[in-house]
Parts: sequence; C-alpha cells; structure tokens
Amino acid sequence: MDKLSNILKFKAQCPFLGGTKTSTLRTLCTRASPHYPSLSRLTEKATGCPVMGPILTSRSRQIAAGYASVAGNVDVKKIHQEKGVDMQEASTADIEKCPHASAALSAARMARELSSAQKQRSKPVHTHATQTKPAECPFHNAKAQTTATQPVEEVFDYERFYGEELDKKRADNSYRYFNNINRMAQKFPLAHTGKVTDQVEVWCANDYLGMGNNPVVLETMRHTLDTYGHGAGGTRNIAGNTAMHLALEDELAALHRKDGALVFSSCYVANDATLSTLGTKFPGCVIFSDKMNHASMIQGMRHSTAKRVIFEHNNLEDLEQKLAQYPKSVPKIIAFESVYSMCGSIGPIKEICDLAERYGALTFLDEVHAVGMYGPTGAGVAEHLDFDVYTRAGKTREPISRSVMDRIDIITGTLGKAYGAIGGYIAGSADFVDVIRSYAPGFIFTTSLPPINVAGARASISYQKEYIGDRQLKQMNVRNVKSKFLAKDIPVVPGPSHIVPVLVGDPMLAKIASDTLLTDHGVYVQAINYPTVARGEERLRFTVTPRHTAEQMDRLVSAVDQVFTQLKVKRVQDWKAEGGRAGVGMVDPETVTPIWTDKQLGLLDGTAPKMLKNGEKGVVDARAVDLTREKFVNLLGPLATVELKTGGVFNGQVGFGYPPVNTLEQIPISVAAAA
Amino acid sequence: MDKLSNILKFKAQCPFLGGTKTSTLRTLCTRASPHYPSLSRLTEKATGCPVMGPILTSRSRQIAAGYASVAGNVDVKKIHQEKGVDMQEASTADIEKCPHASAALSAARMARELSSAQKQRSKPVHTHATQTKPAECPFHNAKAQTTATQPVEEVFDYERFYGEELDKKRADNSYRYFNNINRMAQKFPLAHTGKVTDQVEVWCANDYLGMGNNPVVLETMRHTLDTYGHGAGGTRNIAGNTAMHLALEDELAALHRKDGALVFSSCYVANDATLSTLGTKFPGCVIFSDKMNHASMIQGMRHSTAKRVIFEHNNLEDLEQKLAQYPKSVPKIIAFESVYSMCGSIGPIKEICDLAERYGALTFLDEVHAVGMYGPTGAGVAEHLDFDVYTRAGKTREPISRSVMDRIDIITGTLGKAYGAIGGYIAGSADFVDVIRSYAPGFIFTTSLPPINVAGARASISYQKEYIGDRQLKQMNVRNVKSKFLAKDIPVVPGPSHIVPVLVGDPMLAKIASDTLLTDHGVYVQAINYPTVARGEERLRFTVTPRHTAEQMDRLVSAVDQVFTQLKVKRVQDWKAEGGRAGVGMVDPETVTPIWTDKQLGLLDGTAPKMLKNGEKGVVDARAVDLTREKFVNLLGPLATVELKTGGVFNGQVGFGYPPVNTLEQIPISVAAAA
Repeated sequence: MDKLSNILKFKAQCPFLGGTKTSTLRTLCTRASPHYPSLSRLTEKATGCPVMGPILTSRSRQIAAGYASVAGNVDVKKIHQEKGVDMQEASTADIEKCPHASAALSAARMARELSSAQKQRSKPVHTHATQTKPAECPFHNAKAQTTATQPVEEVFDYERFYGEELDKKRADNSYRYFNNINRMAQKFPLAHTGKVTDQVEVWCANDYLGMGNNPVVLETMRHTLDTYGHGAGGTRNIAGNTAMHLALEDELAALHRKDGALVFSSCYVANDATLSTLGTKFPGCVIFSDKMNHASMIQGMRHSTAKRVIFEHNNLEDLEQKLAQYPKSVPKIIAFESVYSMCGSIGPIKEICDLAERYGALTFLDEVHAVGMYGPTGAGVAEHLDFDVYTRAGKTREPISRSVMDRIDIITGTLGKAYGAIGGYIAGSADFVDVIRSYAPGFIFTTSLPPINVAGARASISYQKEYIGDRQLKQMNVRNVKSKFLAKDIPVVPGPSHIVPVLVGDPMLAKIASDTLLTDHGVYVQAINYPTVARGEERLRFTVTPRHTAEQMDRLVSAVDQVFTQLKVKRVQDWKAEGGRAGVGMVDPETVTPIWTDKQLGLLDGTAPKMLKNGEKGVVDARAVDLTREKFVNLLGPLATVELKTGGVFNGQVGFGYPPVNTLEQIPISVAAAA
Repeated sequence: MDKLSNILKFKAQCPFLGGTKTSTLRTLCTRASPHYPSLSRLTEKATGCPVMGPILTSRSRQIAAGYASVAGNVDVKKIHQEKGVDMQEASTADIEKCPHASAALSAARMARELSSAQKQRSKPVHTHATQTKPAECPFHNAKAQTTATQPVEEVFDYERFYGEELDKKRADNSYRYFNNINRMAQKFPLAHTGKVTDQVEVWCANDYLGMGNNPVVLETMRHTLDTYGHGAGGTRNIAGNTAMHLALEDELAALHRKDGALVFSSCYVANDATLSTLGTKFPGCVIFSDKMNHASMIQGMRHSTAKRVIFEHNNLEDLEQKLAQYPKSVPKIIAFESVYSMCGSIGPIKEICDLAERYGALTFLDEVHAVGMYGPTGAGVAEHLDFDVYTRAGKTREPISRSVMDRIDIITGTLGKAYGAIGGYIAGSADFVDVIRSYAPGFIFTTSLPPINVAGARASISYQKEYIGDRQLKQMNVRNVKSKFLAKDIPVVPGPSHIVPVLVGDPMLAKIASDTLLTDHGVYVQAINYPTVARGEERLRFTVTPRHTAEQMDRLVSAVDQVFTQLKVKRVQDWKAEGGRAGVGMVDPETVTPIWTDKQLGLLDGTAPKMLKNGEKGVVDARAVDLTREKFVNLLGPLATVELKTGGVFNGQVGFGYPPVNTLEQIPISVAAAA
C-alpha cells in the first residue's frame, strides 16, 4: 500500500483529491483496471484539457465500482455547459473555467514527479543528482537523500516512457475508453452496461445477423460443451486437431468452392500469417495493397520481406500502372477487401482479377465484412457478383469455372462477425493451404480454437448457407435506416454495402455524440476516430441487423437527429457548403447503387422477408435448422430431441425460436451517486 | 470435375492408381481436406521414400472417410516388414523393395507434369515453348499445342512453388500429419479418433490439469452461453468489451499481484504483440532472448525494430556478458520462460531479475507452461519460488515487495493449457498494460474472445487459486511416471518440471513410435521433431495429469517399454555409451531436483492428495467451487441451484463432480477396409 499512503499525503495539497474518499483512493490504488490510466496520469491529463477534469471524477467512480460504466463525456458536457466552457472550440483558455481541470494542474505535476521518484527508489539503480528536481517538495527531498550520494549512470525510465506514449494518444484524441457492453442473448439487440439493470440498444456490433444467439447455434454449442468440454488442449499438431475442426474447414472450403480451408485464432492472425508467409517465401515478391486495407493485412505485409506497393483505394488505373512496372516473372500478390468496413465501399473484384491475370499476380481477397451477408449462400461479395449462377448451382461444391469467386486465389474471412462466433480462416488451393499450415508460425505454434466455438461457427455457416432471409432483411433494414437518415439531412457516407457510416468530422465531437446517444437515448454506437479513419473523417458507424424492429430504427433516426441538433453536428447541407467530405455533400457525387438488387431482396416477386415490429419474434428457418442439425449427428448424436431453452413459438414448434424483440421503453441509465 | 477426368485417364497408366476405385478418386478430387496433400503430390512423394507409398494408400482411405484417422505409419511398418524394407536404415535402394513406391515413380512424374500443364492452361497466360517437356506424352502434346504458338513472358508458377515448399518439409521429415483427436469431457483422459467408437488415452494434451472439463467451469460456461450467446460481436473498442472480460483481467491482475492485465486471442498473439510493440517503441531497444524461447516471442522480436541478442539457454554468465556490452541508458528487455515446454527445464528467474536490475533491463517472463500449475495459487514459477511467503499472504492481492514475482516487470501467460480454455494475457504495471492496449495492432484490431470462453477461463483460474490438490497430484503423478520410465532404462530427459520428455533421437523413428503406441496400445503421444526441437533430439513428450490413474500410468510405461524394444529405440545405457545426448546418459550429469518439494506436495504432513485408481472419481473441491460460483452471481445469477449434468457423487452432493475415470480395456482401433 505504498502507493496509497503516498497519495494520502499528497491528497491534502490537492483541491481535487481533497474531495475523494480514502476508500475510493484505496480502490484506485489496489484494484485499478488496466483500462483506466493510473491516478497520476488521469490527474495530470486533467490539466491539458477542459473536459478531462470531470471525466476523472466520472472514471474514478466507475473504477470504484469495478467496471466501466456508460457515463463519461456526457456528465462532462453538462458540467461544462453550466460553467460556460465552449465544447465546440475548446482551448487551453477554457481550463480556467473548468473547476476541476485548473485545480488539478499543480497536483498533477507533483503526482507525476512523486510517481517517478517512487519508481526510482524501488529499483536499486541510481540517477544523476542533476536529474532530480529542486528540493522544494518533501517527496523530492526524500528522493534526493537516497540518490544524491552515488551519482552513477542513468537507466532508461520505462514507466515515464509509457506515460509519454499514453499522453500522445490523449493529445490527438485517439486514446480509447472502452464501454462496458454485455449483449444479452435473450434480449437481442439489447445489452446491459456495467450495471446489469442498465440496458441499451446496440447499434454497432459486428454480430451483423444476430447469429451469436441463433437457437441452432446455441443448441449445437451446448451439446459440444457437454461432449468435448472447453479448450482444445493443444496446437493442431499436438492433441488439438479434432473432427470439429476438420468439419469446419470442410464446410468453409465447400462454401467458397475451394480445395481447402484453414482456421486460425482470428482473421487478424489469418491475414497476418498468410501475407507474411507468402510475402517472405515467394522470391522477390511484391504485394500490391489497397490504401484502405485493414491493419491485419498491413501487419502481414510488414512482417514479410516482400516489397509493398500501395494503390489508391479501389483505383484500377493506379493499380495497373503499378503492376506494369514489374516483370511478369516476379511473384505478385494483390491484397484487397470486398467490403471496406469503415466507409462501406466495395472493391472492384472482377476487374482486379482481370488485372491479376494480365500481370501474373495472385489475388488475395479479404471478405471479412462480407461472409455470411452476401451471395445466395453467404460466401461473400465474390459469390454475390454471380448471384444467379450460384443460385442455380445450388448445393454443389465444385468451383464454377471463370466465376469471380473461382478466379480469386485466396479468400480470407472471419467467423467473428456475421457468423457471430470467433476465429478466422483462409480458403484456396490445397497446396496453398498446406503451405500456410506447414510454415506459418502464427498457425503452428498456437492452441487451436475450442471445439465448442468451432462447432458454433459451423452451425452458423451451415444455417446461413441454407437461409437467405437474414441477409435480405438486413439489407432492407439498412436501406430503411440510410434513407431515413438522409431524409433528415444526416450525413450518411454513401456506399453500396450494409455499412452505415455517419460523418461527424471531429474526434471530440464524435466521442461526445456517441456518449450522448448512449446516456440520453440508450443508443450504443461507438465513435470511429483516427487512426481507424482519416483525420477529419471521424464518424459514427451504425450496424443494422435483421432483428432490429421498425420502431427501433425510427427511434434511432430520431435520437441521432436530436443529438446532431443539440451538439450542432454538421448536416449534409453544411458539408455541401464546404465542398463535401468523405463522399458527403460532394459537388459531383457518384451514383451509388446497393449491391443487393430489388430482385435479390425478393422485392419483385414478393418473397422478401417482413421487417419486424416491436414485440415480434425473429424468424428462424426450420429447414436450415434441420439441415444444420443433421451435420452434427455423427459427433453429437441427434439434437432435435433435446429440450430447447430459448422459448417462443417457431413454425408451430413450441420452445424453439428467437425470443420476442425487447425494446427500451424508457432510458434506464441512472446517474450513479458521486463517490 | 476436370481434375477427376484427367486423373482417370492417367489412372490406366499407373499401377498404383489402377487399384483405386473411381469413387475414391472422385472424393479425392472434390473433397480433399487441406491436411492431406493433393493426389499428385502424394503420388510423387512416394517416389522419394520407401515408406511413402503405403502411407499414400493409408491416407487415401482416410481422406475418403472425410477425416484423418489414427492409422498411418504403423500400416507402413507392417508392409515394410513383410517386404524386408529396413526401417532403421532406409535408403533409396529400398525403393525397389517397396511395392507401391517403386511403381508410383513414373506415375508421379507424369502427375506433376500434368498438373502443371493443367494449371498453365487454366490461366490466360503463356509460357515459353522451351519450358515445355518433350512431347512424348499425350498431355504434353496437348499443352504444347496450346502454348507453343505464342511464346511470351513467363509468369511465376505459384502452385509449383507451393509444391516445392511442401517437398522440403517432407524431405527433412518435418511435414506434419495431424491426428484426429477428440477429447471427451465425460471420459477424461480418453479421446475418440476419426471414428467415434475408436477411443485412445491422451498422454500429450496441454490441458494439464483437466480443467477443460472441470464441472464448475462447464457450469459457468453453460450459463454464460444462455446469458450472452456466442461471439463477442466486436473488438474491445466496439461492442466487444464486456463485464466478463474486465472481470477476467481483474482476476489475472490479482493472481499475479500486478496493477493490470490484458487478454488476447492467444498467448502467441500476446507475446508477439507485446514484444513487437515495446521493441519498436523503446528507442534503440535491445532484447536479450533465451535461445530456447518459444516461436511467439521470436516472432515478436522479429516484428520489432529492436536488436535481438540471443543468450545460451539458462546461461547467466552468457547473459551478463551480453548485457554488459550496452550502456545502462539503453532500453533493454530480457525475454525468457519459466518452464521450457519441450525440455522441461526451468529458467533462473531470480538470478535474471538480479541481472536486470544491475543492467537496467525490463524482465519479460513467459509463464505459459507454468500458470495454474506452480505456486500456492497457481500464479506460476515466479510465485512458486516464494511458496511460503505467498501461502502466508493468502488471498490478498497487493504485491509482496522484493518477492520474485514482484520483481518481474511483465508476465505473460495462457488460458489454453493448465486452465483448459483459450486465450492469452499479459500482466504488469498499469501504464505498461495501457500502452499495449493502446498501441498493439494485434490487440486493437481483432474481435475479442467470446464471453463464454472468458467466463470459463475465469472460473478455472478462480478454482485453481483456491484448490492446490490438482497441482500437487499432477506433480506426484509426474514423479511416478518419470521414475517408472527410468526403472526400465527409458531415456527421460531430466528436468525439475512437470514435462516428461522421452528421447528418441530420430525423426522417423519418433513418428513410428508415436504411431505404434497409438495403434497397438491406444496411447496417444505426439512425436516432437525439428524444428520444435533440435535435430537428433527428437522425442516423445508426455503430459501426465492429476486424473490419470495408477493403472493407466503403469500401462503407459509398459507400452512404451514394449514399443522401444520392438523398434529398437535407444535406452539410457545406449545414450551413455555414445557419450549422452540432450541430458540423457551424460558423463557428468547435473543433479535435478523437482521444483515441487516433498513438503509442498504435502508428503511430509500427510495432506498429499491420493493417486486415483481405475474407476474412481476425480476430486472436485467444494470450497473452491463455492468461491468460484460466488464470483459469477452478479452477472449470471446464483449458479448453485442449477441442475448439473456431469453425474457422480461429490462431497455428498449428488449430481456434481467428475465422472469415474474411463479406461481402455482393450485396444479398440479397428483396421479400416482398404478403399
């Protein structure tokens, strides 16, 4: 408890800590979660920013409760409004207006120095006496006494370095505060926050179809848990290669009509391992990478010895011009995505295949934000581009020659988004897959995924292969939300996919809008700031599922509209007046057509699924359930006879199906009492 | 089905394929799992090695069944014995003796060329006519006709390159065939193979304590599945940060008595992300790495910009000499392990801390093969080294100043081995953890682990924190197996830890010994070959759990003894005659004392747990269960009232506890009919 006793001494000198209970300080000292900066960092940070002081108060309370809560900047906003701090144009001049921030200034500096002195004392190494601060402070005096006698070579101050790195994040508003969000299987799309009774609507999860609580998925997982327990118990080579893993890889190979597939801990690892392995193995390899590619691909390329050539996002001319600079005999990979998750654009897959053939390159397509959601069987955008061909092909698994999916050499996908599970994978030729299996350390030297998750993922893929309704309804709901946003001049970044990005254009404002939606409206949507998107293109990114109801969508649009007005966030017209940004309010906008056509949605022949209303149950497809159950009979026995716990009525079968959609009747967020 | 029709043409010319049914070939062509090389590769490989021909027969059958089976080299061995092929000194001269291998020779070459020609035809690119083979073959004729007219620049042949890379693996016997092993929760330590009714005893899983089917773990997971469904639905920053994650990290921080902890998809990712981030961020960083460090640490260092200095395994003099070459002001990390998993040695943790302080280095300790299994609460070897201090400290969570664990700056651990779950973590100072949380792409940009796995991991940690009996019994069983092996002159690589490595000293022989144990004795232990261990030090690596029975251990020793005799594997005396290898039969052996003392095992005061007998139930500690259940009440509600499915009697409480240990009464492996 050295930390505590020092802070208690320090407390008397600090107007901010003066108001904090000793018990709270003890908690801070002994139980601080890593997600919240240590006390001295927080206190110090309060000095640099007019909003941090109140955040500190709020966060201290949350830490004391053991978890993050959903409060935060909204409390701050209220305090600042009262004190007249201008949120839109916050400057250092506002520090004086902020009662906590200004008071924390001197305290923070002392805390930092105290912390540094403590650290130095605890290690049997010594610093130059010249490095110590003037001894006007009792702590510095103490430090000077222990160190001044033996001035020896100075060692690197690791803790100070950490502090400075964190300061950089705070300085550019890229420091992340994680919200505590617990998505409830029985109340989809609701989640509870740090307090179990406080519930919010989730509008940004990547469980795009709600498969994380699909009844046949959960049923399969319960049985797998009973049959095989928890962990796999080893790497794939040592005791961790199960029939469930082999069956999942077979399911994935069949989905993409490739020879083979290989499952990884995540698609981050799959992309990293595959690109770094190929990029290093192919002699003199050059990787051509779309500018907007995901971090996992960027890491994979960095970890390889290959040369990396970046081409402009979705720009075929730029790509061709760059490809043409290398001899055909040089091994090349074109790495790109189908759906770019932060802007919602879609890659020109077919055209990139043409270029790849022309210049002798491999195609590496990341379908992470597409698998499960595009194509007649959910195999992704590559399948979607030949929608009718694959619909006619039905349940075969042979490649369809010269189809777009067939022309892609390497497909990577995730099990963690539309499939609502965990893990990632690659699919391609047998020898390609075998090379990665045999050479990629990130695959070889890691414990394989638990059978329970692998089984859940397979059930999800199988169900989605057989039932198109979730995909259709999702896209219908996306269309609905996009058009209602635009009707209110809310700046949706245009795109042909299911992603609904709403431009805010300022990191602080995006964070405050997100916090306000959460606190005042029970709407959880995370702000997306740099470095995930470019500076000035900060946004809210909404994900609309097939199980959000019509009323929930209306309420969402209304809540965003209110918050945009309240916080004076720019509308489409404002961006237009500025010449446009990120595709919003552009002078000469491109026409964007949704990739799911009216015909594919079933709107022309009346087979389109129906949008849900509040209190209705989601649709679970009996045929898809039966076909999925059959796949597990060999390992788990017959599943259909087992009691099901999800409740509700489904196709006349009592006890099976989604529970009725839950809605927030009122905003249940209570303001916790100050610590 | 182009591939099939070509193979069918080819079949007529090949004495090997001539015996294969068309239906099997169809399966091979359309359903080949990535784990088995494509047909042409297999066929070709048969030419280079006297044992591959029969393997091919065996594998074809397995592929046809849809899964790997546990057969393999053992079938091969029998065939070779009949034909007089000398397994110990296999040479190319033996090819003629092998009926399949020699016959496959010409067929294989044609298959390769055919495959290459097919590949070239399928891409609209052209090769030099000079590259085509003389046209004595109808396939080559066809190829020459399509390509000879337009000799243009040659493109890189990706498929051929993959094939060559795989050949390298086969050439040095490092190509891995994964066994299909399905560990059964209700029959621990048994697993079924590719055929559900074929069961084997597992002797090499890293579910070191059997926590993968601990009743309170499974109970917690069932509830979590019902409450929160499957996937987390997002990154930690976007919808994937739940109370379960925060609680697990709090549990881990408390376990290691550190400020904070952070959970990753795996400890591979944790090590990679942490070392690459720190090594890149610290200016001019130098990382000192034990020569035997795990691949994940090696990757992390490679992925950083830091200089890497390798010191001899556990060699303090070498480490100090290398540390002394750098100024104290240079940031340094000493990266090492507590238990080295392939040899079972233990790092000199305290002494490395001394050096780190002397030279101003951070200590980075991988406790992957130690957490859950060492120390009074399972925090690892660092805790174990102050066993009495931590036992007295009890359930507090404050650091104990100057204890070894306190002196370690960064601890990394896994949830996938002794805790029987999935995932990895780091623990250390609050700001250190926050830097990794804020900067490491491998943490930031990946979907977080599902709440169900996170909850299971936490339940496991909590249970092991409260109950020492599993740790004690594991070590007693390890002592038992080691001493019984040595009594039969079976060469156990000496070490103070729970790892039981048995030296074989030849990659092929290790694989055959592993296959023979599996097929003839129902004992599953994987061969460990290069690159996991040095060439010439190939071994079998046994893991003994607290729930293996006395009879199972006796049977294991007897089986290994028989197989060693049968295959003429070297004994301790043989190694001694050669001057020793890998610590076995050394002229001047070091005395190795187990790190768990008799006192710590409870052998002195009679509190040691009892070794299980066949048919007995494993012990589940009621207090540890209750204390663990309490931790989940806030999120899952009271768990104790729920019906439990594991059966058996536990402390008078019906329906809770491990099921009786299952044993193999006879070898149930049936030889599948040839395809």
